[in-house]
Amino acid sequence: MNIEGVPFSRLNGWRFDPDTGNLCHESGKFFSIVGIDVYKNQGGIARWRQPIINQPEVGYLGIICKEFDGILYFLLQAKIEPGNVNCVQLSPTLQATRSNYTCVHGGKRPAYLDYFKDARQEQILLDQLQSEQGARFFRKRNRNIIIRVDDDIDVGEDFRWLTLGQIKQLMLRDNTVNMDTRTVLSGLRFQSEQGLISEESPSDVGNALFASERCMEGEMSIDGILHGVSELKSRYELIVDKIPLKDVPDWSVSECEIARDDRKFFRVLGVNVTIANREVSSWCQPIVQPMQEGLCVLFAQKRNGILHFLMQAKVECGNFDVVEFAPTIQCLTGDFRKVSNPPPFVRQFVDGSIKGRVLFDTKQSEEGGRFYHEQNRNVIILLDEALNIDVPENYLWLTLGQIKEFLRFNNYLNIQVRSLVAELQYA
Amino acid sequence: MNIEGVPFSRLNGWRFDPDTGNLCHESGKFFSIVGIDVYKNQGGIARWRQPIINQPEVGYLGIICKEFDGILYFLLQAKIEPGNVNCVQLSPTLQATRSNYTCVHGGKRPAYLDYFKDARQEQILLDQLQSEQGARFFRKRNRNIIIRVDDDIDVGEDFRWLTLGQIKQLMLRDNTVNMDTRTVLSGLRFQSEQGLISEESPSDVGNALFASERCMEGEMSIDGILHGVSELKSRYELIVDKIPLKDVPDWSVSECEIARDDRKFFRVLGVNVTIANREVSSWCQPIVQPMQEGLCVLFAQKRNGILHFLMQAKVECGNFDVVEFAPTIQCLTGDFRKVSNPPPFVRQFVDGSIKGRVLFDTKQSEEGGRFYHEQNRNVIILLDEALNIDVPENYLWLTLGQIKEFLRFNNYLNIQVRSLVAELQYA
Repeated sequence: MNIEGVPFSRLNGWRFDPDTGNLCHESGKFFSIVGIDVYKNQGGIARWRQPIINQPEVGYLGIICKEFDGILYFLLQAKIEPGNVNCVQLSPTLQATRSNYTCVHGGKRPAYLDYFKDARQEQILLDQLQSEQGARFFRKRNRNIIIRVDDDIDVGEDFRWLTLGQIKQLMLRDNTVNMDTRTVLSGLRFQSEQGLISEESPSDVGNALFASERCMEGEMSIDGILHGVSELKSRYELIVDKIPLKDVPDWSVSECEIARDDRKFFRVLGVNVTIANREVSSWCQPIVQPMQEGLCVLFAQKRNGILHFLMQAKVECGNFDVVEFAPTIQCLTGDFRKVSNPPPFVRQFVDGSIKGRVLFDTKQSEEGGRFYHEQNRNVIILLDEALNIDVPENYLWLTLGQIKEFLRFNNYLNIQVRSLVAELQYA
Repeated sequence: MNIEGVPFSRLNGWRFDPDTGNLCHESGKFFSIVGIDVYKNQGGIARWRQPIINQPEVGYLGIICKEFDGILYFLLQAKIEPGNVNCVQLSPTLQATRSNYTCVHGGKRPAYLDYFKDARQEQILLDQLQSEQGARFFRKRNRNIIIRVDDDIDVGEDFRWLTLGQIKQLMLRDNTVNMDTRTVLSGLRFQSEQGLISEESPSDVGNALFASERCMEGEMSIDGILHGVSELKSRYELIVDKIPLKDVPDWSVSECEIARDDRKFFRVLGVNVTIANREVSSWCQPIVQPMQEGLCVLFAQKRNGILHFLMQAKVECGNFDVVEFAPTIQCLTGDFRKVSNPPPFVRQFVDGSIKGRVLFDTKQSEEGGRFYHEQNRNVIILLDEALNIDVPENYLWLTLGQIKEFLRFNNYLNIQVRSLVAELQYA
């Protein structure tokens, strides 16, 4: 793979719309960089304008699985994406925007697409519409789908069959399993009719996870959580209007970037990409680079003998429905070390005063097709049972069973927390 | 009540924004009439511009209930609304937009508001965010909430305690129970821990409804329906952008109305309202008048011994999430008698070739606070068991239990079908 920064004037196929200043593909498809005008009232009234990725298409994130000798294997692809810090990561069997799979680019049809298009009801393990990054995408969603296939399948050169245990072990390494694979796997239920069998004996934590997944009534009932969500979605206002990029103040478009004058948050670059194993082998595109590394932390704790997870109901400007559950700590858009008034639990996490056992601590990448070298620290901490922490009103303790139920019904959990759920280790 | 049409120039408190041409309240609150630019691909690609009501607020539609002698009673208000065909209809205990209950109008605080704001978890029977009319409102939702109160309550002059049986009987009369009451009651589960007791012995249909509500696995499983919904939400595209009202072609703003030159669909009028029992007793507002009476029909049928209902997955331009389940037949925006190519089942319904037993057939009003003299025919037909009808791919048979499960998780059923669900008669 070769990635080369290019000025926007040489970004083939892309242009700034003369009326709006939006950065668009000449086909009108793929995605564009537009402006939004945001009003929100969570944590005090705030209003601002910013650029955002607009991609009003539902793409496929699909994984094919198949049983060999009584064990389910998942077909993943070693895929190169222009923004990857390490060139190759393990991606779903099929990862294609609508513009890709309808071949707007005039290239090859994505491999394995027809398995998903032709799947029969009984082959579907899950099929969910889930959100993407709410601070970067305007109401973007993808179709997270897993299908089970019994027939023999040709395994392409870059593809491999992996067990869930292997994939979870690979997540223990930095930037190895890509974001799309993580979000798709997060929705799997381990103890349902889906009949997933782990080939390894579960650890104590694994057994506690199984028990938590069976538990649909935790500290709160499902109806109680729904009541809490309705209350927060009514109280918090989020009004977002698309506006021309040229009407966004504090951001400047120069020859090579769209960026804030104070260098905060992120910037948009143009890159020329040359990759061997893709539908088209060379193209130009805009890509978003964050200005800092982020932090996502999920607190777990046994409460009344059952493992619960502390979810934060968070308003993000690109959210489809005002509020989604986010990790206990989610600091992505600003530098949490530098702000004078950090969000709840950040200070205690950074100074080590939150006592517990670290179950997971790695760097994980955001989608390399849109984000340049974006990696965020993902941490799961099992708090000591004796620890009694006060939580703000928009924080709720959910069991794993409740989390999986809300995943079924779409758009309740944001992509950062879905990623952490996928990273839970059973072995 | 006195309702008087007034030209926009005398619509006190309202003005056309000089930049956009939008019709707005001077406070910037309540609602406004704006333009939208719509692209959708269901039933062929279509693109159009139209005016729509923009009200980016979640209001309360709340009912208080209380047990007397082992029977639950619901507190309804005989409420006057400017658009009501018959002045007074039975409305929820609390029916208030955010602008109302935060007293933007400088009037009285809505009665009973604090019961809902202070309700404890164990008092909540249901709490759902549900959509309003998708062809008229831009992504409008209200909070549908029922709370149970044990304390004595002052019953205001216009308020009465009614049993569910009484309310359902009143629905058998035209335009008696308003839309807001119908949508709130549609979500009630009759056989859950909510412990609703009917004071009347159920009919055969009533017993079949109870059985259908207990049935969570019908012709399709919940996961199968979710798969179907994901498939349709991915296939159907709906892109709606707010635009200035002045940029909407084919619609003209005259002294007294916003209307299409061909008089189709609806028009927007200005009215001066004087009412005794409201927070403020006199005000001006815009109101929407449809150009024809509509038709909503829900097909029911026993399939494998269990009552199912035929839902249509429908794209409407103001939908929050592309597709919602609508009644089997929903003809509201155009005159179904006059179109050359009517939607599925309309011709068979009109010519009487659909054989079955009519369970319900009345005229029901849309919300009188926004719609002027809008009433639509609501019909429920129990198809003969022997009848085998072919259904298009976006039509699904759901049990009542499945319907109530999708109601819990918000925004799966549109307001027209919720109204029909509320109208199901058990006695």
